[in-house]
Amino acid sequence: MLTDLEIARAATLRPIAEIAARAGIPAEALEPYGRFKAKLGTDFVRAQEGRPEGALVLVTGINPTAAGEGKTTTTIGLGDALNALGTRAMIALREPSLGPCFGVKGGATGGGRAQVGPMEEINLHFTGDFHAITAANNLLSAMIDNHIHWGNALDLDARRIAWKRAIDMNDRALRLAAVGLGGVGNGFPREDGFDITVASEVMAIFCLSRDLDDLRARLGRIIIGQTRDGRAVTAHELKADGAMAALLRDALMPNLVQTLEGSPALVHGGPFANIAHGCNSVIATRLALRMADVVVTEAGFGADLGAEKFLDIKCRMAGLAPSACVVVATVRALKMHGGVAKAALGTEDVAAVRRGVSNLERHVENMGKFGLPVVVALNRFTSDTDAEIAAVQEAMAALGTRAILCTHWSDGAAGAAELARAVQGLVAGGTARFRPLYPDEMPLAEKIGTVAREIYGASAVALPPALATRLRRFEEAGFGRAPVCIAKTQYSFSANPALLGAPSGHVLPVREVRLSAGAGFVVAVCGDVMTMPGLPRHPAAETIGLDAEGRIDGLF
Amino acid sequence: MLTDLEIARAATLRPIAEIAARAGIPAEALEPYGRFKAKLGTDFVRAQEGRPEGALVLVTGINPTAAGEGKTTTTIGLGDALNALGTRAMIALREPSLGPCFGVKGGATGGGRAQVGPMEEINLHFTGDFHAITAANNLLSAMIDNHIHWGNALDLDARRIAWKRAIDMNDRALRLAAVGLGGVGNGFPREDGFDITVASEVMAIFCLSRDLDDLRARLGRIIIGQTRDGRAVTAHELKADGAMAALLRDALMPNLVQTLEGSPALVHGGPFANIAHGCNSVIATRLALRMADVVVTEAGFGADLGAEKFLDIKCRMAGLAPSACVVVATVRALKMHGGVAKAALGTEDVAAVRRGVSNLERHVENMGKFGLPVVVALNRFTSDTDAEIAAVQEAMAALGTRAILCTHWSDGAAGAAELARAVQGLVAGGTARFRPLYPDEMPLAEKIGTVAREIYGASAVALPPALATRLRRFEEAGFGRAPVCIAKTQYSFSANPALLGAPSGHVLPVREVRLSAGAGFVVAVCGDVMTMPGLPRHPAAETIGLDAEGRIDGLF
Repeated sequence: MLTDLEIARAATLRPIAEIAARAGIPAEALEPYGRFKAKLGTDFVRAQEGRPEGALVLVTGINPTAAGEGKTTTTIGLGDALNALGTRAMIALREPSLGPCFGVKGGATGGGRAQVGPMEEINLHFTGDFHAITAANNLLSAMIDNHIHWGNALDLDARRIAWKRAIDMNDRALRLAAVGLGGVGNGFPREDGFDITVASEVMAIFCLSRDLDDLRARLGRIIIGQTRDGRAVTAHELKADGAMAALLRDALMPNLVQTLEGSPALVHGGPFANIAHGCNSVIATRLALRMADVVVTEAGFGADLGAEKFLDIKCRMAGLAPSACVVVATVRALKMHGGVAKAALGTEDVAAVRRGVSNLERHVENMGKFGLPVVVALNRFTSDTDAEIAAVQEAMAALGTRAILCTHWSDGAAGAAELARAVQGLVAGGTARFRPLYPDEMPLAEKIGTVAREIYGASAVALPPALATRLRRFEEAGFGRAPVCIAKTQYSFSANPALLGAPSGHVLPVREVRLSAGAGFVVAVCGDVMTMPGLPRHPAAETIGLDAEGRIDGLF
Repeated sequence: MLTDLEIARAATLRPIAEIAARAGIPAEALEPYGRFKAKLGTDFVRAQEGRPEGALVLVTGINPTAAGEGKTTTTIGLGDALNALGTRAMIALREPSLGPCFGVKGGATGGGRAQVGPMEEINLHFTGDFHAITAANNLLSAMIDNHIHWGNALDLDARRIAWKRAIDMNDRALRLAAVGLGGVGNGFPREDGFDITVASEVMAIFCLSRDLDDLRARLGRIIIGQTRDGRAVTAHELKADGAMAALLRDALMPNLVQTLEGSPALVHGGPFANIAHGCNSVIATRLALRMADVVVTEAGFGADLGAEKFLDIKCRMAGLAPSACVVVATVRALKMHGGVAKAALGTEDVAAVRRGVSNLERHVENMGKFGLPVVVALNRFTSDTDAEIAAVQEAMAALGTRAILCTHWSDGAAGAAELARAVQGLVAGGTARFRPLYPDEMPLAEKIGTVAREIYGASAVALPPALATRLRRFEEAGFGRAPVCIAKTQYSFSANPALLGAPSGHVLPVREVRLSAGAGFVVAVCGDVMTMPGLPRHPAAETIGLDAEGRIDGLF
């Protein structure tokens, strides 16, 4: 079997200006980055404002296995299939992070015949957006320590600096660090740490900003810490927002690439779906809607995390209203939810599928709570049996939802044609009545409770009194209308990764609450949440390299 | 008076393909990055091997004031003037670092009418080369700590890790840090620190590599530290060199931009001139020589540091033989060397010029020791008087060297026409007989002594016995043929920044010696040398931002 990299290499990409032209984007709008990548100029993006918008389709998934269930490949396959059927479709994806690429996960540009390319370039530096975000984040850090060093006119409390440094790398040794060591010339020692760039607030801000002005304003609102008497201090007070915006100016232009089958794809921004909201930039999604009849986009992790945040944070803030939702599932993962051990996932077990399908059922029902019609994409693996597939389809039929077998990984657009027809039907049906799960004016603690009960199936939230007080403080400070961004494990509806299927009656333990004033949401950390991954014992970096022709090898 | 940014904005840049075409570079060779920047494809670069090479002209300077004496503007002005006179000239410069840009120095793309553009883009992320270098550096760091965390099969001694992390930012708080804090999951605590990216060995390697294979081999030779029994451990043993090379592959393609007058300029790589060798990449210089009749390049700081390393490290390793050398001086700086305080540099003081010209004299004589014919470029300031200028010219005439008044800052190519004619004459004269200062086979300690006596005018080197032993160890390990890279202050021929003019009889104190096995040189640190600058009390970042039209403001 060919690897993703081999398939990507065997494909012939078209000049990006040709892809752009087919999507109605003139050559003057392109800022090329090599031959197969381009940024779309700010003037062009602005000139599309007011154009009619196509339909937005969200691809989300069940609670995944560690390998993921194929949301990105399904997004790409569906986009390709829609284009093959004559619907003008555009794909909107997140950019990959270098961290997982050198760690265990490999690239994040789809797989098989459902990929965006150039695969190696998108997975490595792409157009430099994440480097720009890292630099903006760390300029603010340098200005914080510099401010304290030179007299601390703002009276910042070095013990209460909330702003961490960032690096786009899996590096556990940087999670907690003491900086400013070595004497007077090096500033005041304090505790600090590095988050991976995709977990940074700058990344979330970048992805939620409407335009450059909004970006600058949001950067200025970042709360970097407190004074000794407890007053919040912003990036604007440090005069860092202007230079941060300057560093991000070019990055904010959306990136155009293509699928292996020639569909246009905007790949832009990429926040984590735990500590942040897990979907591509508002600017790219909005632009895609103005350039296409259907835009297919994805949200990270399972629908409990990714879709909920996509809908309650991104769509709410940006005024987007999706027309349909695709929930991706695999028979393997449903068997896992049905209690089968990893080693036995390749063996037929219809009973386990019937048990585990409860996970899929709840996600499908949950999407209905947002007013969205749903179709299930069953991402086929060779080990799946007809009886197992039938079990999933029966369960979905009972809910009035179709579960469509997809083989875009091996067959490209043809493998997602039936899914595409179903999506066309949902869009044309016009039954979507999108509504966020909770209103802006609901108190913050109640918002957390609403997500916990309605989406997670929890019976209650364990919110320590100190955190309840903190949430009230946020409300008093004027942040009460913000949506909540719940950070929890992606493996379960609950905060316990071992609780598979569709657990009920569990209690959601809130461990910490944070205000991301620039991003405009309140983070509720539930359980162990990683904002800086580590590398595995044998990281992928050990086998990545250059072959004799100077091509990049070992990416997968 | 217009600022550099205003002049840059008022200029109209031509599409980069047009600049390339005029330089004989076909459109297929370009990997465009926006409309005015392009990388030159590896295949094209390789295809130029064996082509006849033009003449190489080095622009260097006297020991500078903090503001610099105008080496970059002179390099650009001279290149423009040569082109205006009908000589096919190309310019080869270093890329700017973000650190100084947000600190005190501002941009590094020349000034006035002698600039390369697009100024804001080159000064900020450019084509992402420095970000790629930072990422490669920090991937190695992450793999070191990861190796120790997962069992330390190589028996690395955590107390003897020589490899530091890097960031392209002025950030004093990161000079010395304790990492790996926070418990078992975060690895083993150890002391670490961050160098600014331009001071990293990866940057030096990047700039000295002949091609991708050489790059990979050099990365593999990096010594990251020692085992508990004192054996050196390399990046190759950690299996990091392949992924590092993959991260650097695209960055290694030279960047083509243009001057405001339309001359082609390769701007590529940018190592510090203290801890590293301070000049642009070998690949870019070599390519430029194959595309032009004359290539004008510059080396950082004064000729004692920059030119000496350019000649003894870069030219030696790459087999380059310069044809002529331009030493840039200003009347203001010569007055400073003559003992005038900064506040009085604008007042005429011919006697001070006569005293201070000793600094220029020694640099001119030094270049002769490398077999190079010299012309002095006197970079004119409005406060310079005719009598002061005459004093410099008389002193130079006594050495048989012309000192030519240049006004390219205000007048562009026309202001460097006489300098260009003089350079044409030196090149046509063919009198250059380039030889490095010392042979490869000279012992390392003697190499340091030779530079100290011949170039710095020192009477001796203070080399502590422990360091002499360390140098012998390097020789025993097979690194005896390496050139030495002396890190000292740029403000004086000595290691004492206050010792201006042309001091003699001083002793060069060696504080530390380090082996940069990947770069292929031995660093001798003399006096206080900064590998991570700090930000000033009011960093430039405070005033950098976006104007109402989204243009970058406050860069200078």
